[in-house]
Amino acid sequence: MARAIDVAVVGATGLVGEVLLDLLAARRFPLGRLRLLASARSAGRRLRCGALEETVQELTPRALEGAGLVFISASDAISREYGRLAARWGGVTIDDSGVWRMDPEVPLVVPEVNAADVELHRGLLSIPNCSTTPVVMCLAPLHRRFGVRRVVAATYQSVSGTGRAAAEELRAGCRAELAGEPFEPRVYPHPIAFNLFPEIGSFQPDGYTSEEWKMVRETRKILHAEELAIATTCVRVPVAVGHSAAVHVELDRPVEPAEARRALADMPGLVVVDEPGRHAYPHPRLAAGQDPVFVGRVRKDLSHPNGLVFWVVLDNLRKGAALDALQIAEELLRRGKL
Amino acid sequence: MARAIDVAVVGATGLVGEVLLDLLAARRFPLGRLRLLASARSAGRRLRCGALEETVQELTPRALEGAGLVFISASDAISREYGRLAARWGGVTIDDSGVWRMDPEVPLVVPEVNAADVELHRGLLSIPNCSTTPVVMCLAPLHRRFGVRRVVAATYQSVSGTGRAAAEELRAGCRAELAGEPFEPRVYPHPIAFNLFPEIGSFQPDGYTSEEWKMVRETRKILHAEELAIATTCVRVPVAVGHSAAVHVELDRPVEPAEARRALADMPGLVVVDEPGRHAYPHPRLAAGQDPVFVGRVRKDLSHPNGLVFWVVLDNLRKGAALDALQIAEELLRRGKL
Repeated sequence: MARAIDVAVVGATGLVGEVLLDLLAARRFPLGRLRLLASARSAGRRLRCGALEETVQELTPRALEGAGLVFISASDAISREYGRLAARWGGVTIDDSGVWRMDPEVPLVVPEVNAADVELHRGLLSIPNCSTTPVVMCLAPLHRRFGVRRVVAATYQSVSGTGRAAAEELRAGCRAELAGEPFEPRVYPHPIAFNLFPEIGSFQPDGYTSEEWKMVRETRKILHAEELAIATTCVRVPVAVGHSAAVHVELDRPVEPAEARRALADMPGLVVVDEPGRHAYPHPRLAAGQDPVFVGRVRKDLSHPNGLVFWVVLDNLRKGAALDALQIAEELLRRGKL
Repeated sequence: MARAIDVAVVGATGLVGEVLLDLLAARRFPLGRLRLLASARSAGRRLRCGALEETVQELTPRALEGAGLVFISASDAISREYGRLAARWGGVTIDDSGVWRMDPEVPLVVPEVNAADVELHRGLLSIPNCSTTPVVMCLAPLHRRFGVRRVVAATYQSVSGTGRAAAEELRAGCRAELAGEPFEPRVYPHPIAFNLFPEIGSFQPDGYTSEEWKMVRETRKILHAEELAIATTCVRVPVAVGHSAAVHVELDRPVEPAEARRALADMPGLVVVDEPGRHAYPHPRLAAGQDPVFVGRVRKDLSHPNGLVFWVVLDNLRKGAALDALQIAEELLRRGKL
């Protein structure tokens, strides 16, 4: 991993971009030139990546030219426009949007689960949606050992998943509420302070949101389990950082919680926190700023003989976004595919 | 309903007591003498019930003596000590704790679902837990028309379910977080501001909490469906008022969402809010201060041929507590059982 890579970060001023710059330094990624790209509004700002300090430039096709590795975490429109650009000169793009994930030519990768899929890339790879990653990290070892037949999940997704403006809207809404002042939301359709609502993404004719369908389709693709039965409800909650999910699975056979816990604990990147009598289980404040996915409250599903229930939490900006993208880049390097 | 009833409110200074006093006046309950009872600390405070104003007295057996109707919403210990007292002189107690609900001699009632059960009382009736009520209000019409075989629910429960000190802890925690100051929780095991955690009540050896078991056992008792398969995850969220739940049910046959919506809309006390394209679905701020249970996001369960999914929200202090208790009293009056 000695060869230095010219890296471009598209969306460098966003919440995920900020974490990615930290991780690039902390994980000693072999950086060559580093380009920080964002909208014209942010151009000129100086950002740090470890000891480096760079000036943010406006994103244009020209500004990206020749980059060996491009991380995109901006908007769907930006990902659509720039996702395939670097491939033209032999560069590789790792994209954080929902635009390319289900494209059959684009590997969708959680390295602990399906690292080998990176081999198939044609210059563009995707990371899953931040609510898919925690669930699929738990399903993978369970599916391998016990066979997962059906998944029912309800999520609790933090505002940082929406971005910086949403994070500020939560804080501003709380401030207004505490002061007894009115507050008009601009990012979300309803006030999020001291509230929550089951709408993330856009509604489809079948009553599901695009976010809910992401978990269904992405999980199947990552696990190579096209027939897996999955249904989910995705909910935005007034949490700053950290996505959680309550997950019920049906397995091929009855599985004791202790056996399931062992399978989960053996999974790289997954940490079991499950001593409920001592109030030890995953929660967003435990996961925020941490790399692993945390799982706990593993127990039998009272309503099904082969059922198992667990509770999973991750930092949606880290393993849910920036860290997964960087791990994919590291995997590409390791395999000589970058 | 002309005869005036001597009413005692135990826990009059609590969040539920406050709502109950409002409802007693608003619903023109035929009040005779009204006694407001609480701990010694609160004695002497003056509280309003419509045009009436009364002084809070310290709760003692003596202070309760002769009351015709006693509402208790205090602690499990108070309910245990005082729950059967009024029956001695022919009075009736309606209790809001978890102490008596599963006692075979105590009717557990949601009047829209099992009003006739009030007939069986021996001086003590219970209302269900505030996370059971919304779910059972939806299950009842579905079970009647389509047969419910299995229920999987994940809850999103507000801090007002814990009480006044918890509501204040959420606000104080938010204030501290916004000011960048440290905050040590005293009511909850973890900070609740901008956080959430899957612990309500106490953990059982099987890994479930007492709160989760309440939904299982109480739902079966209210629906008279002892074999109904139910599993749930109960989660405390940083919401002020309003409990929500994502509920997956398996029915005897495939049911179209429109058909299910009609069954739900026909249920008294239940309001369908289900125009997601217009951001219209239940959420805590919609339900807070309202009497009905709100249900929406009704859709097929993608993971099961006979499956249906919905999202339900109620004001946990109203229909989740005070209103249900008062409706039971009204039902007793109507039937001449008070």
